[in-house]
Amino acid sequence: MRMVDLIEKKRDGKVLSQKEIDWVVENYTNGTIPEYQMSAMAMAIYFKGMTAQEMADLTMAMVNSGDSLDLSAIEGIKVDKHSTGGVGDKTTLVLTPLLAASGVKVAKMSGRGLGHTGGTVDKLESIAGFHTELEPDEFIRQVREIGIAVIGQSGNLTPADKKLYGLRDVTATVDSIPLIASSIMSKKIAAGSDLICLDVKVGSGAFMKTVEDGRLLAENLVAIGNAVNRKTIAFLTNMQEPLGLAVGNSLEVEEAVNTLKGEGPKDLTELCLTMGGHMLVAAGAAPNFETARAKLEQSLADGSAFEKLCEFIGAQGGDVAMIRDTSLLPHAPHIIPVKSERDGYIQEITALPIGHAAMLLGAGRSTKEDQLDYAVGIVLDKKVGTHVNAGDVLCYVHSQSTDIPNVIAEIHEAFVIEPQEAVVEPLIYEAIGV
Amino acid sequence: MRMVDLIEKKRDGKVLSQKEIDWVVENYTNGTIPEYQMSAMAMAIYFKGMTAQEMADLTMAMVNSGDSLDLSAIEGIKVDKHSTGGVGDKTTLVLTPLLAASGVKVAKMSGRGLGHTGGTVDKLESIAGFHTELEPDEFIRQVREIGIAVIGQSGNLTPADKKLYGLRDVTATVDSIPLIASSIMSKKIAAGSDLICLDVKVGSGAFMKTVEDGRLLAENLVAIGNAVNRKTIAFLTNMQEPLGLAVGNSLEVEEAVNTLKGEGPKDLTELCLTMGGHMLVAAGAAPNFETARAKLEQSLADGSAFEKLCEFIGAQGGDVAMIRDTSLLPHAPHIIPVKSERDGYIQEITALPIGHAAMLLGAGRSTKEDQLDYAVGIVLDKKVGTHVNAGDVLCYVHSQSTDIPNVIAEIHEAFVIEPQEAVVEPLIYEAIGV
Repeated sequence: MRMVDLIEKKRDGKVLSQKEIDWVVENYTNGTIPEYQMSAMAMAIYFKGMTAQEMADLTMAMVNSGDSLDLSAIEGIKVDKHSTGGVGDKTTLVLTPLLAASGVKVAKMSGRGLGHTGGTVDKLESIAGFHTELEPDEFIRQVREIGIAVIGQSGNLTPADKKLYGLRDVTATVDSIPLIASSIMSKKIAAGSDLICLDVKVGSGAFMKTVEDGRLLAENLVAIGNAVNRKTIAFLTNMQEPLGLAVGNSLEVEEAVNTLKGEGPKDLTELCLTMGGHMLVAAGAAPNFETARAKLEQSLADGSAFEKLCEFIGAQGGDVAMIRDTSLLPHAPHIIPVKSERDGYIQEITALPIGHAAMLLGAGRSTKEDQLDYAVGIVLDKKVGTHVNAGDVLCYVHSQSTDIPNVIAEIHEAFVIEPQEAVVEPLIYEAIGV
Repeated sequence: MRMVDLIEKKRDGKVLSQKEIDWVVENYTNGTIPEYQMSAMAMAIYFKGMTAQEMADLTMAMVNSGDSLDLSAIEGIKVDKHSTGGVGDKTTLVLTPLLAASGVKVAKMSGRGLGHTGGTVDKLESIAGFHTELEPDEFIRQVREIGIAVIGQSGNLTPADKKLYGLRDVTATVDSIPLIASSIMSKKIAAGSDLICLDVKVGSGAFMKTVEDGRLLAENLVAIGNAVNRKTIAFLTNMQEPLGLAVGNSLEVEEAVNTLKGEGPKDLTELCLTMGGHMLVAAGAAPNFETARAKLEQSLADGSAFEKLCEFIGAQGGDVAMIRDTSLLPHAPHIIPVKSERDGYIQEITALPIGHAAMLLGAGRSTKEDQLDYAVGIVLDKKVGTHVNAGDVLCYVHSQSTDIPNVIAEIHEAFVIEPQEAVVEPLIYEAIGV
């Protein structure tokens, strides 16, 4: 087999066989196929796409390029959840203890944040002592014992994906649905769960700009999962504004705690109940969505979901006192209101500048080496659809400094305020594969 | 400027500016832009094309990546000629002395052959002592003094094209009209001539398979030349069968000599008179095509074209005796007839297997390092359109060995013989830019 022939085949819109895809991934990972051939292949895939079978084959070839977690020692359906990246997206912090408290085992692999979106691991690490460096056997034991564990992305999982992603990033081949879908699914499948729930964010500040693009990605993610015998469901959700109110690590932990106590923002609560309900059904833990949702609401109401969070945080070395009393979490010395400069309805709170503003404060990383400030962030005071007058508070900035003109400018850029009433997009556009 | 942004720009079908193209070519040539970004760019160009201006800019950026020949010390219009690669294509050997004898200065840069097509330099080197390693000042002096010189592709001409061509060859980005056109034209422009004549071969055995593709390439070649102030004309010519009868180095020299003596095959003679006539007009050496053609016919008839060949060969160290008596050229010990296996009309003599057969005999190179056998080759006995009966001789193989089953098999594959009368394609489909 010659790589140049396979590039030509894809360039001409033909279908690569499983054997050919395996050969490409194996020889690219071990360095036999040079980067310059792989980038040409990636660009050919960008233009010519891949069939569902090719995507499944690429996904499995990337899974097989490294180690996989074997969760078979854990009885029952293990669930995992992944978001394509939003701002203020603390869903995992709420949803996973909620599911575990409602009888489903959660074995979740999470990453750190880079750029304008935060990472679940970063948020959890704002709790003193919490860590995600678990050995696979510890991870498995914890899921068996308390029904929930979160492990960082470590070890030699999907090295082919890591290498290819780095190449795509510098060759303008990131925005390819088949490559995005197989990258996401390879990591989820290597992480070992039986049921995978994907939250595909849609909006100007998200990776997928339109519902159509988001649907295409979601459908492909579900198709890949089903083709390789992992039950997969996906949700298209709205990123017209950050999820909930808080953006920033300890601020988001606090909001997640409040939500698990039944006192969270409406959108975050609703998203967790809807996604969670469908997951319970898909995992066989409830006969239908209504029953499932009632079960989750009960777990919130009776405190068991919150107690599960405390148990989970404690098991991974975190200071549970900080969860029981969130005033003990890191807090910034200055809370600065940002006020509207005009009258009108909030049309959009664009995720990208809000995420950038949080990054400038120190809540996110611009390079992998950046140290995070867990205390800082932004708390929205108004959401899309609200009418404001000039001088009304839009949000509060939690900051180490009062001299933050760039942050304020980003926030003003994010708040799109116009005279006409706003079109409030639905929180969840579609559920796929449920 | 970031290469990833420029790849994305081209990927999205936008037009690159001259400044951007210059930056890409300069930084790719000096190694700042890695191969994996350039291959992604090449694939994006493959899919999205280039405007005429982009092609002209790319061409000139490649010209400027290295040295150029400055032929301004030679008075008058200097002409160069290039073929996209045919089998049995000894046009240069006939046309250049014919033009020089008819009052036009020929400053030609030629390459060696690789694969199934032969190179002009290889053919000339079958004449003992002949060499093309001229210093630029020798080359210029010879064109001034005798009106014709052929120099090998050497020195630091268009290093960007050399590097990019090598990359395209292994990344399935060879078949891109903008990249082919700018590659060809960059070499011709760096070689310094004022008037460039391009012979675009069309047919199943040629690089351009259809008249449409060939026309597109020819039009782009002419457009680039005109955009950078080099008068450029192009011809779409037929590769339904090899040109003339001989394929192989000394066999082709012999046929060229015969043609210059007025005893050549009809198609080769006709091609040289037609292309040459248009070139004389374009160079201002004749007022119209009819006068030009008559002038060329006169140069054949009075022996001046043949004497010019002798003068040229002698000037570059070649043994002129071999030209005056071609029986002194290298000859193979065995001449083996290949006979038809069926009755019918010859529909096609496919260039690719004929070229392969010649290569197997030793007349061509499969790798750059292969040594050539100048004596061997194939001489057609019948051309397309002829009716043959089983047992009739199709061609003669000039070989060092009589045990050549693979060669014979390739030849039988090349001769397409069917019961119906053949459609004989025109020798010249179109002239562009004349």
